[in-house]
Amino acid sequence: MGMLDEKLRKIYLETGADALWIETDFLRRYLSGFYSTDGYVILDGTSRTLVADPRYIEAAERALAGTDVKVVRGAYPEALELVGGKKALGVPFPFTDLKKAKALEREGFTLVDCMPALKAAMEIKTEEETALIQRACTIAEDALISVLPELREGMEEREAAALLEYRMRSLGASGTSFETIVAFGANGSVPHHETGVTKLKFGDAVLIDFGCKADGYCSDCTRTFLFGDDGRHGEFKKAYAEVLKAHELAKEKIVPGMTGREADEIARGSLRKAGLAEYFTHSLGHGIGLQIHEYPTLSPRGEEILQNGMVFSDEPGVYLAGEFGIRIEDSCCLKDGKTVSFMHKTDRNLIIL
Amino acid sequence: MGMLDEKLRKIYLETGADALWIETDFLRRYLSGFYSTDGYVILDGTSRTLVADPRYIEAAERALAGTDVKVVRGAYPEALELVGGKKALGVPFPFTDLKKAKALEREGFTLVDCMPALKAAMEIKTEEETALIQRACTIAEDALISVLPELREGMEEREAAALLEYRMRSLGASGTSFETIVAFGANGSVPHHETGVTKLKFGDAVLIDFGCKADGYCSDCTRTFLFGDDGRHGEFKKAYAEVLKAHELAKEKIVPGMTGREADEIARGSLRKAGLAEYFTHSLGHGIGLQIHEYPTLSPRGEEILQNGMVFSDEPGVYLAGEFGIRIEDSCCLKDGKTVSFMHKTDRNLIIL
Repeated sequence: MGMLDEKLRKIYLETGADALWIETDFLRRYLSGFYSTDGYVILDGTSRTLVADPRYIEAAERALAGTDVKVVRGAYPEALELVGGKKALGVPFPFTDLKKAKALEREGFTLVDCMPALKAAMEIKTEEETALIQRACTIAEDALISVLPELREGMEEREAAALLEYRMRSLGASGTSFETIVAFGANGSVPHHETGVTKLKFGDAVLIDFGCKADGYCSDCTRTFLFGDDGRHGEFKKAYAEVLKAHELAKEKIVPGMTGREADEIARGSLRKAGLAEYFTHSLGHGIGLQIHEYPTLSPRGEEILQNGMVFSDEPGVYLAGEFGIRIEDSCCLKDGKTVSFMHKTDRNLIIL
Repeated sequence: MGMLDEKLRKIYLETGADALWIETDFLRRYLSGFYSTDGYVILDGTSRTLVADPRYIEAAERALAGTDVKVVRGAYPEALELVGGKKALGVPFPFTDLKKAKALEREGFTLVDCMPALKAAMEIKTEEETALIQRACTIAEDALISVLPELREGMEEREAAALLEYRMRSLGASGTSFETIVAFGANGSVPHHETGVTKLKFGDAVLIDFGCKADGYCSDCTRTFLFGDDGRHGEFKKAYAEVLKAHELAKEKIVPGMTGREADEIARGSLRKAGLAEYFTHSLGHGIGLQIHEYPTLSPRGEEILQNGMVFSDEPGVYLAGEFGIRIEDSCCLKDGKTVSFMHKTDRNLIIL
């Protein structure tokens, strides 16, 4: 983890506290390189320490041997000892609950939000991080490819979701990166459809939005298919072609230096020309990393400048209430001035199952 | 949800705020009867209102028709409008982050912790709630029964976990209630073993700690098996018999009016007589409900009085580092003065697979 040193110093300095006090899983993973469900990372200007309890201490010592991370056995009291004499503690406000905050304040600490500094660092991924995201994307694609031939008439949405999740786990994912969405027929027109007991019928559109976690990092992918062509899909096919065009255009044209708003407008403008912009009811994309929703935001309100190393989704969609929904989504990375997809295996052209 | 009216008034009065402001998923589910990933419940002394965004508004209106829950379309601004003129807001401190808390304080509100009042109400389950927990337990047991014949030599822990989770989903669970633990051989001696790539061998002990969610409510169950008897399991079998004895004794003797400490001591004392108490390195049990870990706590430090309607785990265990671990766990309910298990289908006697 030596490569993070400069980043860590920057996070520390930008926060402006005497030390960072981190007890949120994914942030502890980010700052120490070790994943556990409990523990503390204390970061000051010169060192970082992981406090691990008996369940994790041996694994942590093994995993972090040879790095600059000090590993200390303990829990809350041992973490408190490490910040003895400090005044201002940096904690991530959006992930620090009032009960814990008040306990730290009772110890005499002033709390400062370290999340802006962490967010700025975390949205630029290292090569090590993009390799982990690539792995999560490959697992997800392989799982989808293995599941498609098993979709059959009468299958419930939740069965298809369970099967897909099982395959992702079997291929090495630790779990899903969010609740799998499987939407049959008109259910696809609800962007956040809750996977249920609707049964697959011949001629249905099938929308699958899914992702997994591998080594803590997330993937995010959506594909829309037809389960047999009943000959009544003229409108659907026209819309599909436009969503695909918007999706590909975004990948082609998004470059560093652009704002999230400008990136969003590439896809939105393309759909506008086709008269479909009003049916594209969400943002083009969101950052992806240890969390499924990170920065940057590719939306009409995204003022952030895109940079090399950022990872985000490219997911235009068109939703006609009660009729159908189409979304085509890849996880992508800005690399050497270009947008590169992590998805290399599944076809984005319309597949009729 | 009419039956909750008295409970709700009590929660409101015990909190002592002008209104409760709830934006935590499982608490919103508890106070409104409707599950969504976003939204607000505002509870005052006379009414409760669910604020739901466009994704959920129709489903919420349908689900809550005929109840006393008012449903309002909106998000943060609409929720703020509902508490206009109030001064003290009850929020659950352990589930309210500093960012949200500071935003409410900037609006002029004083924040009061409503979690003690909620905790007191939530640890006594209604019949409707125990029926949902029963469903989650039945799904879990059925899934386990279907998976056991499929365990085979060479299978990885994570494959077995994925298969079990797939079966729970297929049987109607919305997901797991915690990360499934599958531990082969000596891995079982780590109570919170991280399910990994260890392969199943003839003669291994197999410890499976698993649960699912159905309609928001959790189940929790552990079973320990032998995968073939290689004739070197004398110590294991002796210990198994003692853990089972402690488990059954707890179910037989835990009654309302006892403290969590006294309940824990039933199992711990039994293991002490067998010289195994030092290997029982965790608590006997924890409350179960919309969360996998709730109150009461059945541990040497559990001073709470057990009451009818409480739901908790009975999970004694014995762990011999590097050798084996044994845990036998049922989800149970205190009903009409007795402890009743929700697990009716899987055998607790030692099974040799």
